Amino acid sequence: MSAGTGLERFSINQMTVKQLSMPELVSGCQELGITGVGLWREPVAEHGLEATAKLVRDAGLAVTTLCRGGFFTAIDPAERAAALADNRKAIDEAATLGTDTLVLVSGGLPSGSKDLYGARERIADALAELGPYAASHGVRLAIEPLHPMFASDRCVVSTLSQALDIAERFPADQVGVTVDTYHIWWDDTAPAAIARAGATGRIHTFQLADWITPLPQGVLTGRGQIGDGAIDMREWKAYVEAAGYSGPIEVELFNDELWAGDGRELLEQTARRFVEHAV
Amino acid sequence: MSAGTGLERFSINQMTVKQLSMPELVSGCQELGITGVGLWREPVAEHGLEATAKLVRDAGLAVTTLCRGGFFTAIDPAERAAALADNRKAIDEAATLGTDTLVLVSGGLPSGSKDLYGARERIADALAELGPYAASHGVRLAIEPLHPMFASDRCVVSTLSQALDIAERFPADQVGVTVDTYHIWWDDTAPAAIARAGATGRIHTFQLADWITPLPQGVLTGRGQIGDGAIDMREWKAYVEAAGYSGPIEVELFNDELWAGDGRELLEQTARRFVEHAV
Repeated sequence: MSAGTGLERFSINQMTVKQLSMPELVSGCQELGITGVGLWREPVAEHGLEATAKLVRDAGLAVTTLCRGGFFTAIDPAERAAALADNRKAIDEAATLGTDTLVLVSGGLPSGSKDLYGARERIADALAELGPYAASHGVRLAIEPLHPMFASDRCVVSTLSQALDIAERFPADQVGVTVDTYHIWWDDTAPAAIARAGATGRIHTFQLADWITPLPQGVLTGRGQIGDGAIDMREWKAYVEAAGYSGPIEVELFNDELWAGDGRELLEQTARRFVEHAV
Repeated sequence: MSAGTGLERFSINQMTVKQLSMPELVSGCQELGITGVGLWREPVAEHGLEATAKLVRDAGLAVTTLCRGGFFTAIDPAERAAALADNRKAIDEAATLGTDTLVLVSGGLPSGSKDLYGARERIADALAELGPYAASHGVRLAIEPLHPMFASDRCVVSTLSQALDIAERFPADQVGVTVDTYHIWWDDTAPAAIARAGATGRIHTFQLADWITPLPQGVLTGRGQIGDGAIDMREWKAYVEAAGYSGPIEVELFNDELWAGDGRELLEQTARRFVEHAV
């Protein structure tokens, strides 16, 4: 690595620089020596699925993940059927884009429900249907535990241990986990959970974002640029590496202030911060 | 309980109705049949420590807790000495007010630090000095795990298990924990931690608040009125009761919208919601 750019394992999650169009993102990566991108379904659909697949393939970029499937917690049968159909579509899209990993945001509590346990079971029920379909398309599903502040409205899976409790019911080539520093950095049981995930080959992606405060209204768009916050990136990188993970490392930020600036400069800054704090 | 008001175990944390003056709070409690109050140091100081002690004593009110001590995570020796001195003062105040429980908010990461483990050790160091002092005044220190969204800036103790890992280094009459639904409701390991806390007599107070979204900017003042959110209060009450806790149950809300209304009506609403959702 000493002779390299330090960006060999870096992947830019598209949401980090969402002000860039798909062609701007791809050309920016080429100019900066970035070799991996994590894509999101909405901008992919906007540019066109086949056109995006060709654009990234022709540029020699690896698609490290597709975000996102999930939202499995509905009780209503019609809603559940629609979610399953949409997730099959997401798996198809992942396969077309050439990525082996679909990130899952599992969903929050249905309106009026207080039953976290029941909601988690409905996630497992959905994965029992989707896991084989994903594997047959060469796609692994990666349950992402989201920070507990999202437990009611976005994701009832709040810790890596909870994610593994679900994932381990399935073969590792069907279901694993997303390890994202932003969501788990506070958790002193997470290092052991990372080891547990690695032992069964379930670390399907590793993502970085830093923790900064104060959190903004709604708390979704307050992720900090690498190096700006409370998280020691090399500590978490060491945990996943000790667990056997040697794959791409995505930086995924949602940040209103960063989005208000120039996207190309943000891409460059993010790559630089990755090298400074995570290599 | 069937013949009673349902408020026998209810205690109103003063911060819930912070628009009320100390005399308004006390007279409101008397009129509504509320027998317990949780007090905060700042309004106590404003009304006067001795005057407050006399006011609540003459009204027959039990002071269930004093909030709050803590902020033990500074590295700077002068800051640490000041924090210890301030906590001794808080213990003195608790004793004067006649409460046996001082709630601790342990403190966040010092500026520039990323070391959660070191910060937690400094909390234990402080408690080694303060525990005997507290016990000699008939006061128990109650470490409050705060929701992980406060881990960097307010409290590096994010789970009940982490709080117990620290508390169990000390005798239970010196150091225990605060069980607050708002901070732990998402955590599937919390029920077992409650049992663990009860087994060694360390549930020093039990507090209720509901979880509602969207969270406000800064996330501090978004606690929901009982019944408005995602938390099943009776479920958590059953956990602490199964663990042997039969003491007061405080409702502690921080909510800008509730604070903007009439304090006396809010006090009545809170008592009513307690009976509807937690008795």
